[in-house]
Amino acid sequence: MNYGLPLLKALVEHFKKLPGIGEKTARRLAFSILDMDGAEVREFAETLLQVKKSIGFCTRCGNLAEGELCEICKDERRNGTILCVVERPADLYVLDASGQYRGRYHVLHGVLSPLDGVGPKDLNLERLERRVREEGIQEVIIATNPSIEGDTTSLYIARILKKLGVKVTRPARGLPLGSSLEYVDRGTITRALENREPI
Amino acid sequence: MNYGLPLLKALVEHFKKLPGIGEKTARRLAFSILDMDGAEVREFAETLLQVKKSIGFCTRCGNLAEGELCEICKDERRNGTILCVVERPADLYVLDASGQYRGRYHVLHGVLSPLDGVGPKDLNLERLERRVREEGIQEVIIATNPSIEGDTTSLYIARILKKLGVKVTRPARGLPLGSSLEYVDRGTITRALENREPI
Repeated sequence: MNYGLPLLKALVEHFKKLPGIGEKTARRLAFSILDMDGAEVREFAETLLQVKKSIGFCTRCGNLAEGELCEICKDERRNGTILCVVERPADLYVLDASGQYRGRYHVLHGVLSPLDGVGPKDLNLERLERRVREEGIQEVIIATNPSIEGDTTSLYIARILKKLGVKVTRPARGLPLGSSLEYVDRGTITRALENREPI
Repeated sequence: MNYGLPLLKALVEHFKKLPGIGEKTARRLAFSILDMDGAEVREFAETLLQVKKSIGFCTRCGNLAEGELCEICKDERRNGTILCVVERPADLYVLDASGQYRGRYHVLHGVLSPLDGVGPKDLNLERLERRVREEGIQEVIIATNPSIEGDTTSLYIARILKKLGVKVTRPARGLPLGSSLEYVDRGTITRALENREPI
């Protein structure tokens, strides 16, 4: 679609680069910017720049951080003897929001994926081994995604860590709460039946 | 969700102000900005600012324009005797992309909506009347949305314009192409049967 407005077209293209945003949504978002208050758009643009400039990775765990260490690594009330390994910072926030876990984290920044050329050296693994050795860690929960790549990565890490004498676990697999059996996939059903629990 | 990162939280809030973007999508978009190349984010922010600064409304038809007149009003090959009235610039682009219409446009910037306090004075109507009188317009197609407000607005405008002796039409109503009868609403079915065409 040619708007005769190169700037608007450029904005649509920028929105299209965001995940899950197609042509139509990008167009709607671009038009909504035109309807917005000027001050609000300036603040939006400013925040984009600031976020990119000021947020980096925690030098200890790989989580997002505005300084050297992230808020979780700085928090002395956290249990320092347990680590939860995740693929990405976004996973960490979802797990942490549950309130169930009060230990620390370690972010891999990816999963093993030979087809995409991602090997162990490309993940934040060396630092994980060092932390387990040096921080007196007693348990590592490997919370990679329950996908083929996630499971492969999980097994790979478990093998390394077990040699260091640490307990290695992962979150339970089974029926998601609030789901309807009719719509749950066969793999999940199989796993849920295998791991059935006493009532 | 508290990220311990006020900037990231602010960015999520900005994304949430965009139409159709909820908390989860806003979070995914904000995280994707962190994964993006720095130069790309700067360009995105710059484009946001430029769009808001440089794009205004055509002084003749109300369409988006980077200068005094929009590209369509400046285009001398357009048929100057026919006008198509739309609610918003976004509607204009969708109609124009069909390639079916090569006349000019007039953008109302809204619809009559007494409940929201939008009356005739709030729409770009005075200029429409003046254009019909002064530009030798022979036909006005009123292409407001086929909603209650759109139809009310359409009838209101038609009444005014007919007094000026101009032909007033609107796009046909009926079954959308590629639709499935099973999923078409009753109002559309009724209209499609009333207005049935010979094969």
